[in-house]
Amino acid sequence: MELGLIGLGKMGGNMRERIRRAGHTVIGYDRNPDLADVGSLKELVDTLAAPRVVWIMVPAGGPTQSTVDELAELLSPGDLVVDGGNSKWTDDKKHSEELAAKGIGFVDAGVSGGVWGLENGYALMVGGSVENVAKVQPIFDALKPEGDYGFVRAGEAGAGHFAKMVHNGIEYAMMQAYAEGWELLEAVPEVTDVREIFRSWKEGTVIRSWLLDLAVNALQEDEHLTGLRGYADDSGEGRWTVEAAIDHAVPLPAITASLFARFSSRQEDSPSMKMVAALRNQFGGHAVTDASGRVAKEHKTPGA
Amino acid sequence: MELGLIGLGKMGGNMRERIRRAGHTVIGYDRNPDLADVGSLKELVDTLAAPRVVWIMVPAGGPTQSTVDELAELLSPGDLVVDGGNSKWTDDKKHSEELAAKGIGFVDAGVSGGVWGLENGYALMVGGSVENVAKVQPIFDALKPEGDYGFVRAGEAGAGHFAKMVHNGIEYAMMQAYAEGWELLEAVPEVTDVREIFRSWKEGTVIRSWLLDLAVNALQEDEHLTGLRGYADDSGEGRWTVEAAIDHAVPLPAITASLFARFSSRQEDSPSMKMVAALRNQFGGHAVTDASGRVAKEHKTPGA
Amino acid sequence: MELGLIGLGKMGGNMRERIRRAGHTVIGYDRNPDLADVGSLKELVDTLAAPRVVWIMVPAGGPTQSTVDELAELLSPGDLVVDGGNSKWTDDKKHSEELAAKGIGFVDAGVSGGVWGLENGYALMVGGSVENVAKVQPIFDALKPEGDYGFVRAGEAGAGHFAKMVHNGIEYAMMQAYAEGWELLEAVPEVTDVREIFRSWKEGTVIRSWLLDLAVNALQEDEHLTGLRGYADDSGEGRWTVEAAIDHAVPLPAITASLFARFSSRQEDSPSMKMVAALRNQFGGHAVTDASGRVAKEHKTPGA
Amino acid sequence: MELGLIGLGKMGGNMRERIRRAGHTVIGYDRNPDLADVGSLKELVDTLAAPRVVWIMVPAGGPTQSTVDELAELLSPGDLVVDGGNSKWTDDKKHSEELAAKGIGFVDAGVSGGVWGLENGYALMVGGSVENVAKVQPIFDALKPEGDYGFVRAGEAGAGHFAKMVHNGIEYAMMQAYAEGWELLEAVPEVTDVREIFRSWKEGTVIRSWLLDLAVNALQEDEHLTGLRGYADDSGEGRWTVEAAIDHAVPLPAITASLFARFSSRQEDSPSMKMVAALRNQFGGHAVTDASGRVAKEHKTPGA
Repeated sequence: MELGLIGLGKMGGNMRERIRRAGHTVIGYDRNPDLADVGSLKELVDTLAAPRVVWIMVPAGGPTQSTVDELAELLSPGDLVVDGGNSKWTDDKKHSEELAAKGIGFVDAGVSGGVWGLENGYALMVGGSVENVAKVQPIFDALKPEGDYGFVRAGEAGAGHFAKMVHNGIEYAMMQAYAEGWELLEAVPEVTDVREIFRSWKEGTVIRSWLLDLAVNALQEDEHLTGLRGYADDSGEGRWTVEAAIDHAVPLPAITASLFARFSSRQEDSPSMKMVAALRNQFGGHAVTDASGRVAKEHKTPGA
Repeated sequence: MELGLIGLGKMGGNMRERIRRAGHTVIGYDRNPDLADVGSLKELVDTLAAPRVVWIMVPAGGPTQSTVDELAELLSPGDLVVDGGNSKWTDDKKHSEELAAKGIGFVDAGVSGGVWGLENGYALMVGGSVENVAKVQPIFDALKPEGDYGFVRAGEAGAGHFAKMVHNGIEYAMMQAYAEGWELLEAVPEVTDVREIFRSWKEGTVIRSWLLDLAVNALQEDEHLTGLRGYADDSGEGRWTVEAAIDHAVPLPAITASLFARFSSRQEDSPSMKMVAALRNQFGGHAVTDASGRVAKEHKTPGA
Repeated sequence: MELGLIGLGKMGGNMRERIRRAGHTVIGYDRNPDLADVGSLKELVDTLAAPRVVWIMVPAGGPTQSTVDELAELLSPGDLVVDGGNSKWTDDKKHSEELAAKGIGFVDAGVSGGVWGLENGYALMVGGSVENVAKVQPIFDALKPEGDYGFVRAGEAGAGHFAKMVHNGIEYAMMQAYAEGWELLEAVPEVTDVREIFRSWKEGTVIRSWLLDLAVNALQEDEHLTGLRGYADDSGEGRWTVEAAIDHAVPLPAITASLFARFSSRQEDSPSMKMVAALRNQFGGHAVTDASGRVAKEHKTPGA
Repeated sequence: MELGLIGLGKMGGNMRERIRRAGHTVIGYDRNPDLADVGSLKELVDTLAAPRVVWIMVPAGGPTQSTVDELAELLSPGDLVVDGGNSKWTDDKKHSEELAAKGIGFVDAGVSGGVWGLENGYALMVGGSVENVAKVQPIFDALKPEGDYGFVRAGEAGAGHFAKMVHNGIEYAMMQAYAEGWELLEAVPEVTDVREIFRSWKEGTVIRSWLLDLAVNALQEDEHLTGLRGYADDSGEGRWTVEAAIDHAVPLPAITASLFARFSSRQEDSPSMKMVAALRNQFGGHAVTDASGRVAKEHKTPGA
């Protein structure tokens, strides 16, 4: 079938390649003319035969919103928009309604796979009506991994991104699990070969997984990860997972702990621990250290 | 080679079978005479040719301790004891020294694999001197999965059980990760097929793993797990992992959250939340409910 | 001065009383005619002399929004609205702008004090321009406790409710702190008089506080809180605190743990722990219990 | 009455002063001859009239153990030892039995009050038999604050230090509560005067406490705590609280989060977050930064 694809960055470019390998026609648009097959969104829409399917693969938030807005003007009733970016699931409902008012269908697709997706396939979690999802199914089949898994219609519009968001929340906690275990093993002198322990876990253990394989790869390159800073960004899905949990009164202690560990990793110094240090000094006369590490105050006399 | 194996329960019995399949001779002892090849520890020791290797596979704590004590009396210098049970790693050092005083070697082996080990092999994490570990290597090779993984010498005595303990700590947090994600998905009405989402995750996702496969199996049998209580025991390794972390000042927020979730799951009612409810009533006149769920107090007047 | 007060429930009624005791004129409106001084919002506005100050003390969300909407129609340029309810701070900005478009001022006031406020005074955290806050200052002075504390202008519109929200977040974690300590003391048989320990802490300790005094009161009435269920609602501010923290990438582990403990306290059974139980059964053949507590499955055979 | 006091550091010296002010005789010993009233433990024991009461106020662990050992040799049946240091409660049972074997009594006393105790009195939590506690009661009465609170016999030997340990666990979480709230307020630009908010909370709020007063003092000296590092030691009781909770399967999420926050505050870089960063790079090609903060790797090609 024929697909319009907007956004040809790292993910979008690889996806175009994988869809084409499956025999479909992809017309790609990107603000960067070196990547694009057409020069404008309008040209993209004009090139596609109706009923059109246009897949948006641009950053969540403003860029996705403005693309949806433009497509609402350019497309015709019976056309369909797929948002395959990392949109917040609450945006999907809004986009779905905005497009429905013009007779345009909407499907949201959470896409997992990262840099490995081109070869191994992308796991897809999609939301939308059964009819709309069916219209994109050949593309989903091209993108997904071979075999029985890697694709699910999770519910109506928004459910795809919701499922992908929870996937990422689980991912945060799994990464944190391995990371905590690794830190503890590295901290104990009696354990002499942590890298080899991780390597051994690849078979026969309860905790074998693809993430474990990646951890083994990383340790192969840098046994004690000395070349890295303990600094981890977050792309939004972890935050949204915790927010959704709060909305539904669902306790998520491990996932939230993983999110907070990332927040802490990005702080040069912890404001809250400054307060704890200040309080300890106030009541106990515990030494506190100033910004340069020198002892700043000690044996505070009460009332002084 | 020839091995004495003490403890022929679920794990020990399967391990005897796997070792025999590999062509080794196993003489098994168990308090239950229906399972045992010999009638006593003494008979076991007398039957084995020196230098002997005796593998203990009995519950951690008292049973393991008394078995080590008896073997210390029965075995000869040059013999070797393997503790393959779930012993706390600090016990290993004690046992190692106790046996060394008699010229008897010691190796600790953390064994993972559960009910799947007989067919798939057991992952082994062992601690002890290089020489002692080498003496048991043929047995380790018989037990481990085929291929390059599933066995590691983690360090000196105790390091095997330490690595296995951390493995289990990681396992707790991974299970909690999937469990939290599942609960959140089940809580949101827009997501209509949680089981199918889990099934789809088996390929192409970042979170694919053996535990995920097991979750899919469990949901296949009981889509919403309605037949189960939310009750989870813990076998000790999770607690020891947190204790070891505290000893080394290593923060383990996700693993500890997972342990505490298990503790909470076993409480009929939460004492701490009784106190929170009592405090809310004291300052805010918030309604509190008695044990039967009826509103017990409301609109408390201060001073009354 | 003269004040219009909308909402004469538990809080609003006591506040009217305290303001009147300070010599001010309060004209109260409530949907319940038994509580009200006037029969309608319009009558309230007509009764007050311009420039008017009208204090809203109704539930957050819909009721506050509709009251703001009505006042926007009824009031005149130069009048001022105070929202003293538990509104989310992001609503304040919206209300402030909506009213400013009509020339009406806005101040948000977070009010703490619960059932004790009438006698002891209410702590007030307010947001709004310096001029607008000054117009309400006599009322604030009447409501606040005597002495140097209990009132703050925290910033522009929204900052008052934000400060009150954080106050409540801190409150959650403090209550959880005492609750956890109490549960641990009650769990240890060597500690024979937990109530007396809490009572003793009222002087000389680092942890003495008003909340501790309330805990002592609660234990005085019911030594082991046997008459209560471990069930705690949350009124929203705790959730918003965590959401605000996530928006600003601030780690709040203790406050969030306290919120999640409340969520858990309200679950009859934990879905996530059902999944953990299911996983344990899958890999280890651990016994699981069904809803009635009977052992439902054990020694699962792999592949069966 | 007459008391022997061993250890005249910051705490011990102030306690000697407070006991003397109450009219009792204190004979103090310290390794530092400038502080001591006698030259040796033997001289201390010889100077006191039987039956003697000797209060140990030296660091927990080795120093306390060796002092108990020496006193076991020097004292006579009918004498009594009080351990007022920060001993782990499990040590108390051992010391109690060791001394009981010589006919010497034992009482453990958890002491709170820090640098403020000399003037305000020390809160005391004591463990031991009713008879033994009664023998020290005049000293306890001298040390405790005036009024009805500040002293409790918490149970048999060990219960005093256990209660003090839990006190400190609660203290950790309360400090963390204020610290988290403070950090969040400081992070939000709309809130313009965080110090004044804290000051206002001293009256009329639910969260007013002595620790809050200390926080206000600290902010008075340094509004944004810019002179401090976010670094907090821990003196052991927090760790023991979590260990005791684990032993009794009591979930302590807020207290444990507070302990882990201190651990993290002392790490130059987080090993676990290095692993998280490494994993993110492996699967997503996310940029990682090296130790100097430069981007070290990006857009990793799979298989490369």
